[in-house]
Amino acid sequence: MMANDRSRVLITGITGRIGSHLTSELLARDVAVRGLVIPNDPLRSEVDPSVEVVEGSLDDAVALDVAVANVSHIVHLAAVILYQPHQDELIWRVNVEGTRNLMRAIQQRPPSPLRLLFASSDQVYPGPFPQYTPTDEEHPLEPTTAYGISKLIGEELTRHTARVVPNCRFTIVRFCHNQTWQEILDPHGFFAERQFYVKGRLAWLLDSGRTDSVTTESIRRLRAVDADDNPLLLSLTDTGEPLVLEMMDTRDIAAGLVPALFRPEAEDNVYNFAPDSTVSFTEVVPYMGRALDKRWVEVKLPGAPARSNLSGAKAMRDLGVRARYSVFNMIDEASRTGHHR
Amino acid sequence: MMANDRSRVLITGITGRIGSHLTSELLARDVAVRGLVIPNDPLRSEVDPSVEVVEGSLDDAVALDVAVANVSHIVHLAAVILYQPHQDELIWRVNVEGTRNLMRAIQQRPPSPLRLLFASSDQVYPGPFPQYTPTDEEHPLEPTTAYGISKLIGEELTRHTARVVPNCRFTIVRFCHNQTWQEILDPHGFFAERQFYVKGRLAWLLDSGRTDSVTTESIRRLRAVDADDNPLLLSLTDTGEPLVLEMMDTRDIAAGLVPALFRPEAEDNVYNFAPDSTVSFTEVVPYMGRALDKRWVEVKLPGAPARSNLSGAKAMRDLGVRARYSVFNMIDEASRTGHHR
Repeated sequence: MMANDRSRVLITGITGRIGSHLTSELLARDVAVRGLVIPNDPLRSEVDPSVEVVEGSLDDAVALDVAVANVSHIVHLAAVILYQPHQDELIWRVNVEGTRNLMRAIQQRPPSPLRLLFASSDQVYPGPFPQYTPTDEEHPLEPTTAYGISKLIGEELTRHTARVVPNCRFTIVRFCHNQTWQEILDPHGFFAERQFYVKGRLAWLLDSGRTDSVTTESIRRLRAVDADDNPLLLSLTDTGEPLVLEMMDTRDIAAGLVPALFRPEAEDNVYNFAPDSTVSFTEVVPYMGRALDKRWVEVKLPGAPARSNLSGAKAMRDLGVRARYSVFNMIDEASRTGHHR
Repeated sequence: MMANDRSRVLITGITGRIGSHLTSELLARDVAVRGLVIPNDPLRSEVDPSVEVVEGSLDDAVALDVAVANVSHIVHLAAVILYQPHQDELIWRVNVEGTRNLMRAIQQRPPSPLRLLFASSDQVYPGPFPQYTPTDEEHPLEPTTAYGISKLIGEELTRHTARVVPNCRFTIVRFCHNQTWQEILDPHGFFAERQFYVKGRLAWLLDSGRTDSVTTESIRRLRAVDADDNPLLLSLTDTGEPLVLEMMDTRDIAAGLVPALFRPEAEDNVYNFAPDSTVSFTEVVPYMGRALDKRWVEVKLPGAPARSNLSGAKAMRDLGVRARYSVFNMIDEASRTGHHR
């Protein structure tokens, strides 16, 4: 199934970090786009006027029926990415029940050919603690977070739908850690807040409600370096190891979703999306400091060292997916345009 | 973790087809048993008085917290086994959300060693249409029914709980088709009604709400042989193939759960439970007819031939699980005691 004049793509989460870029990619190819937008979404006004908007959330069965009607492709991006213990309920409701509601709408619509792409995550492996690296698509699926298990269940619901719906093909894409350049330096940005700023990490640990020794000792050590200028944070393990991971620009994720959605090789297939190299925070944080003219503090925090290295080789080989933007490009872009206040 | 003086086993679904027999097996070994019993369960009065009963259903968080407190073993049997399209909601609510609620209670209780056994099903493979037979535990998990996907999600929730809860070990047991001798000849019995009686199959097809050609043609052919004496049904495919499957007595399932629950080999392991041979309905239905002194009709029905042959070899080898009762034993027992009215 290739993109053609009759292609009509539904994107859930169309106003989101990836959906907005995917919309641009599809519109640039003259593909008709429909988007599911939650009521009162503040980003709705930024949706391109040529997009057909269906207003509703993933628990609105009527909206879902309307959204899935007469589309040839569905990209299910809508999800919450959360890691605090008290957010488990919301994760379940949106990522599991929401996905199930969407799948039910797909199963109940009049049959017509469908390509169904589910946005999953390296957290199904699980992300930072894989059995081996580079972690390819054959790695056992053993999530350790509520978010990770929600994505694994979403994958199973997607596969199941493709089995029971005639002429339905699935594609599952597992994203590595990804960022928008607008958020990467933002002291209140997704990920940046808790990863790159002392105050953000402190607030995040306090909000977790966790009282284990790793958490309380981390809070103690961070308080010792906390200061009014909210320094950048370079956290190391007790043995001095920095965080090393992949960071992929959401624009590259969105560009990769186009062949994943239309190329026949991707039918009933699973792909990791990841750049071909990892970055160490010992490089990233000082680079940020220089870009922002801001000091950073090195803090040893207890806990197991994360060792993330997702292999994107299969998607590169089959679909030509690659990372055009490095984390350093993103930092340059953010500091140049003032996205760090 | 072996059964010892401090073993205390929670059984969900304790009044059910398997739970009631498992209770007897455990009490006979002097193991303390706690049972979760839904409010107004008509079978509650049949629970042995030495069982500690916790009243509540799988959507009652308070009851679940009470139920999981201070137990060393949990056997999660409570589930609905349903196959009609209009029952998908109930399957999701009980089997998926109910299991998730139980797992949440387990994750939130004060940590102490736990063995967690989840009752799954051959429907995860899927049951009647496997890629190969005998179907062992390595077969891809590709359910095609709402019930099957609910059990697969239950397995994943179980594994996840064992990963995130300290000192928690899981065992997953996938049951083949199983029967109680009391229900096997019952014209309104689970499975027997639609499998062995013309009127039962007709009612089941009509209740399905399905309007596809296989269903409507099946209804037409069954109506042609329907009669006031409600004859037994021997259904064949259009090419004359009978249904061939495993049938295991729930007493044998329950007996097998004891080593699955206590033997160290079964920790973090998965087992099929199945007898070492299948039976053909060309043998079963005439045997029933003779036992009941009742006529049977042979009806060719459209649809793909089911080809079920679950391998129970691993459970036999590791745990000594075996079938003591054949389907013919069950029929004898039912007809002798009048369980067919």
